[in-house]
Amino acid sequence: MKTRFFIFLSYDGTSYHGWQVQPEKITVQARIEEALSVILQEKIKTTGAGRTDTGVHAKSFVAHFDSQHSDLKGNNNIIFRLNTYLPEDISVIDILAVNKEAHARFDARSRTYSYYISLNKNPFRNKYTWYRHGDMDVNAMNRATSYLLRYEDFTSFSKSHTQVKTNKCEIYEAGWTQKEEILVFKIRANRFLRNMVRAIVGSMVDIGTGKIPPGEIEKIIRAKNRSTAGVSAPAEGLFLERIEYDTGIFL
Amino acid sequence: MKTRFFIFLSYDGTSYHGWQVQPEKITVQARIEEALSVILQEKIKTTGAGRTDTGVHAKSFVAHFDSQHSDLKGNNNIIFRLNTYLPEDISVIDILAVNKEAHARFDARSRTYSYYISLNKNPFRNKYTWYRHGDMDVNAMNRATSYLLRYEDFTSFSKSHTQVKTNKCEIYEAGWTQKEEILVFKIRANRFLRNMVRAIVGSMVDIGTGKIPPGEIEKIIRAKNRSTAGVSAPAEGLFLERIEYDTGIFL
Repeated sequence: MKTRFFIFLSYDGTSYHGWQVQPEKITVQARIEEALSVILQEKIKTTGAGRTDTGVHAKSFVAHFDSQHSDLKGNNNIIFRLNTYLPEDISVIDILAVNKEAHARFDARSRTYSYYISLNKNPFRNKYTWYRHGDMDVNAMNRATSYLLRYEDFTSFSKSHTQVKTNKCEIYEAGWTQKEEILVFKIRANRFLRNMVRAIVGSMVDIGTGKIPPGEIEKIIRAKNRSTAGVSAPAEGLFLERIEYDTGIFL
Repeated sequence: MKTRFFIFLSYDGTSYHGWQVQPEKITVQARIEEALSVILQEKIKTTGAGRTDTGVHAKSFVAHFDSQHSDLKGNNNIIFRLNTYLPEDISVIDILAVNKEAHARFDARSRTYSYYISLNKNPFRNKYTWYRHGDMDVNAMNRATSYLLRYEDFTSFSKSHTQVKTNKCEIYEAGWTQKEEILVFKIRANRFLRNMVRAIVGSMVDIGTGKIPPGEIEKIIRAKNRSTAGVSAPAEGLFLERIEYDTGIFL
């Protein structure tokens, strides 16, 4: 009789080909499954809440797995041993027990991403921000952002030729803030299309620099065509911040 | 007729053999002199305010140099071109004109270092903190720190066999603070001996973990013998924060 657990992780994506296991690539999932299998001494397979792309970071990523151990919930000894085994760019934050049917991906209610842009060259942030020299008009970027909340088909900000059935997403909140030389874009939605946040940020930067006016975003969305939007922002500035679940699934 | 300038830099020391030029080693000074010589189109030699060791970071390092250009002060065009030329882990913050006799090292009034310890494994801070699992008694560490302010010969916290004439330093302030899982040691003095901050932090951690009592620091200082102190803390947690000068030297 196995127990199902959610494992909460944090990782610096710089050195990884994203979350998902791929043949002959170093991925976070491969590292986690190896660590769990060695420390728990049983073969562990995980299912992630989504897939992060190459180079994208996660402050809190969630995956589920089944184990014959029933005592893993908040088990600091196991968490410490996993962290000692894992490389320094991946950290286990917590392990929680969940309902047998709970699913890290299907049960996620919302996902929150942040994108960081640095207006100055900063040696300590170069792995975690997109450095773009020169001021940007944050008010214009926020005016453009408001259009995102009025639509639900984001084909224009998705990777072409993916196999998803629908390009509809419900965006709950989105906005830019500036603190000194750092601009932060925060966006929360029920789901995201592949490459969506980076494609949105790319177009928003075109607005911030005055290349296109804020209202242009509406035309881009309505076109439902990826070629109308700007170039995608690079992976290094993107963080998966949080994934929300109904508390009822936790034991 | 050349003009003397102070250049203010910030760098991530992870990939460098410290500041100072050494044969066949990659150092920050070598990178800076190359960038200045290429961008200013004259051979530039710099004199640093000190030497940071391999792997140590600097939020604000200062060096002086002489140039036949007289218009470098706050020259944003030159600063931008230097930053574009330099690798992403080194940044030029500013260039200021100074008196002809001003000297980055001899005229420094004080230097401030910070040392960061993380009590949790944090993928985004592993290059910038010393990760030590387990709680530490910050009050005991601060009691021990207070002894540092009562003495001036820090032979016990210096690298043996260096060629300095005196091991005397005047420490103006020193103390530990904790914010969530990060401990920060801040220390300001007129000068520091080689390896001094890391040797002090190493002993302070022995106090924080209860290996030795706070009063033991006094005995270590009075012994004037490096072998009495703890093991040096690793370079990755150490930041040169600031170097202070009399404002009178700036033009």
